Amino acid sequence: VQSSEPIITLTTDFGPSAPYVAAMKGALLSVNSEARVIDLSHSIPPQDLRYTSFFLKHSLRFFPEGTIHVVVVDPGVGTSRAILCVELEGHKLLVPDNGCWTEWAALSRSVPRVWQLTEKRWWRPDVSPVFHGRDIFAPAAAHLSRGESPAQLGKPAASWHRLALPTPTLNQGHWEGEVLFTDEFGNLLTNLPGTALLQQGVPPLNITIAGVTVNRVVRTYGEAETGELIALVSSSGNLELAVVQGSAAVRLGAGTGTPVTVRWNIESTPKEVTTAK
Amino acid sequence: VQSSEPIITLTTDFGPSAPYVAAMKGALLSVNSEARVIDLSHSIPPQDLRYTSFFLKHSLRFFPEGTIHVVVVDPGVGTSRAILCVELEGHKLLVPDNGCWTEWAALSRSVPRVWQLTEKRWWRPDVSPVFHGRDIFAPAAAHLSRGESPAQLGKPAASWHRLALPTPTLNQGHWEGEVLFTDEFGNLLTNLPGTALLQQGVPPLNITIAGVTVNRVVRTYGEAETGELIALVSSSGNLELAVVQGSAAVRLGAGTGTPVTVRWNIESTPKEVTTAK
Amino acid sequence: VQSSEPIITLTTDFGPSAPYVAAMKGALLSVNSEARVIDLSHSIPPQDLRYTSFFLKHSLRFFPEGTIHVVVVDPGVGTSRAILCVELEGHKLLVPDNGCWTEWAALSRSVPRVWQLTEKRWWRPDVSPVFHGRDIFAPAAAHLSRGESPAQLGKPAASWHRLALPTPTLNQGHWEGEVLFTDEFGNLLTNLPGTALLQQGVPPLNITIAGVTVNRVVRTYGEAETGELIALVSSSGNLELAVVQGSAAVRLGAGTGTPVTVRWNIESTPKEVTTAK
Repeated sequence: VQSSEPIITLTTDFGPSAPYVAAMKGALLSVNSEARVIDLSHSIPPQDLRYTSFFLKHSLRFFPEGTIHVVVVDPGVGTSRAILCVELEGHKLLVPDNGCWTEWAALSRSVPRVWQLTEKRWWRPDVSPVFHGRDIFAPAAAHLSRGESPAQLGKPAASWHRLALPTPTLNQGHWEGEVLFTDEFGNLLTNLPGTALLQQGVPPLNITIAGVTVNRVVRTYGEAETGELIALVSSSGNLELAVVQGSAAVRLGAGTGTPVTVRWNIESTPKEVTTAK
Repeated sequence: VQSSEPIITLTTDFGPSAPYVAAMKGALLSVNSEARVIDLSHSIPPQDLRYTSFFLKHSLRFFPEGTIHVVVVDPGVGTSRAILCVELEGHKLLVPDNGCWTEWAALSRSVPRVWQLTEKRWWRPDVSPVFHGRDIFAPAAAHLSRGESPAQLGKPAASWHRLALPTPTLNQGHWEGEVLFTDEFGNLLTNLPGTALLQQGVPPLNITIAGVTVNRVVRTYGEAETGELIALVSSSGNLELAVVQGSAAVRLGAGTGTPVTVRWNIESTPKEVTTAK
Repeated sequence: VQSSEPIITLTTDFGPSAPYVAAMKGALLSVNSEARVIDLSHSIPPQDLRYTSFFLKHSLRFFPEGTIHVVVVDPGVGTSRAILCVELEGHKLLVPDNGCWTEWAALSRSVPRVWQLTEKRWWRPDVSPVFHGRDIFAPAAAHLSRGESPAQLGKPAASWHRLALPTPTLNQGHWEGEVLFTDEFGNLLTNLPGTALLQQGVPPLNITIAGVTVNRVVRTYGEAETGELIALVSSSGNLELAVVQGSAAVRLGAGTGTPVTVRWNIESTPKEVTTAK
């Protein structure tokens, strides 16, 4: 199904109460009042490009071809950093040249086509050096939605910044990774390959975070008891640590950046032990 | 008026900053890019089914016939709990079988028709056991919006969970109830029948909460002075306790679950008293 | 471009989790299911009319002609305060008569036409005295979007409340102003005329806030170092104080209402000085 009215998604760190999101929506709809605006989030932690990278990687790919994405997390607003228009797999993305989009692009086997926005005739007349979201991104997205091509908005970009999320390492038979993202429930999403590590047939694991060993591996939260600390495969395929109906972040005092270690538990076969009570 | 483009409302506990809401919207629009997505709330307190029940009861009924509602507050995600499609008074509701919808349904004199989602061909191909919102609810809602019938999505449900909000009791001439909901203003919405208790002709009431007696009964906030503790009929018809331009929750140290007692003040007729200053 | 489907924006202080916004959207779409609802903010600080005034001033003007704006920040709900329909430069605004819209209107050279909503036939049948947003504003906006004229909704208003944001004063060669708004980043937006004060050719300024002198004047955040306290022209043209990739609000312990003084630094020309290290 292809809509006659284009979809434009918005992702910013402007927060829920400032007038900035509203101003952007107005500027956008002033150029194309038919555009359908979809809020992804306006509560990205301020200027957090790693967070943005994680966010985009795990959301944009679910949208249909033809979607236009506007991403304004932009510590470099008003400096000489470029504004890019990226075309990839039928999506168009307007984004500051700060690399927050490259992890998303790396999911694809296609090569992105990238332009720099340089054609000021598509912008608002007086561009504030501190609000390109309203004065450049919004009208540019609206013009794209009306059928202008990226090539009309600027010139091909020869290079751009990349931002890689930290990757885990495999050292002498154990994995070392870290927490990439903490969600509203206090679940800790790591960069460790959950699908590979937790699949059937793999020996039991010794998962350590913040000095605590996570012993229980489950498929979903409801398989364990309320309050239990568990490991599972997250909805993005990575290793996730959670507390059933509670917050692993609070329980462990952990969050984005906390190291996580995974060892194969080669001594996990039952043996005779003496335990003192 | 019947729109050619169907309305799909979203209610979740995913929070404002995670990529989960964005992923759901993408999955939905990938199936029907014409759907009109309306956010109800994504800040339901995590996994709080009673809150969800209150929320749905006081919002869904205002929507027009033909609306599709998606509710993902789902502590049991990935377990054997069913996902239901409920049809009632021209609304269709997709919801985990956890009872959060039954108070809404109880407002109607009609009998809901209920199905279990079982037909996997309408789902995303790889269903994550921890993200049915993206992989089942979103595409199922989009298919409903394209004209598929609930019967095509699954099979009739023989039974389902119910969740009743706590009801007040009438004991020896006094009511005992509790706070059901605390809003952004700190207003305390109780489960006591405000319209019946506060109507004209009823004798004065003695309303007690958190050790404090609420003496002032008004029709609206502005009838009392700033800072005054008042009782009134809430917008949902229940007894509400509030502080004018302040927070009753903070003033009283009260919140959801705090008991509230109402007695008829039979000694309220003026009589001769001696007061010491 | 003029859309066939009217745009209705919503601005409230109802917060992200209460069912009030949802109920309003339902009541609106029940009257006109074709309306396109655009959220501006539902996180206006509760009952804060000055905040609302600032918010509307810096957002509504970016919307296209034909937009209908619904603003429900309404400490006087249910009292005798009127509900106004304001028509100005092709925008229609529904708003309580509390003045929060007059700073926006003052941006225009046109004279607003103002009506009082009095025609109850356009309202929901049972109007709650504490929820006019759902029972009056929402259906009235939807009827406007279906082509009813303001004159059909009520009668011309002879007068209305005005709310002026505090203006700076020029005393004996120095400006005294204050912070009007603190955004999500901790940036402090003042009421001082940034464009005039910071333009080229003006002598260096001595900007003082919370006992601290701001020495660095820049065009945009990225021109200074991380952590530096800077002054610049905000996106609304006023003097803004910020900390690069940090929070000026936190650093200075400042916020809305904090006084700001600006003097021309007439002794700023370099002179011979002895400095002790």
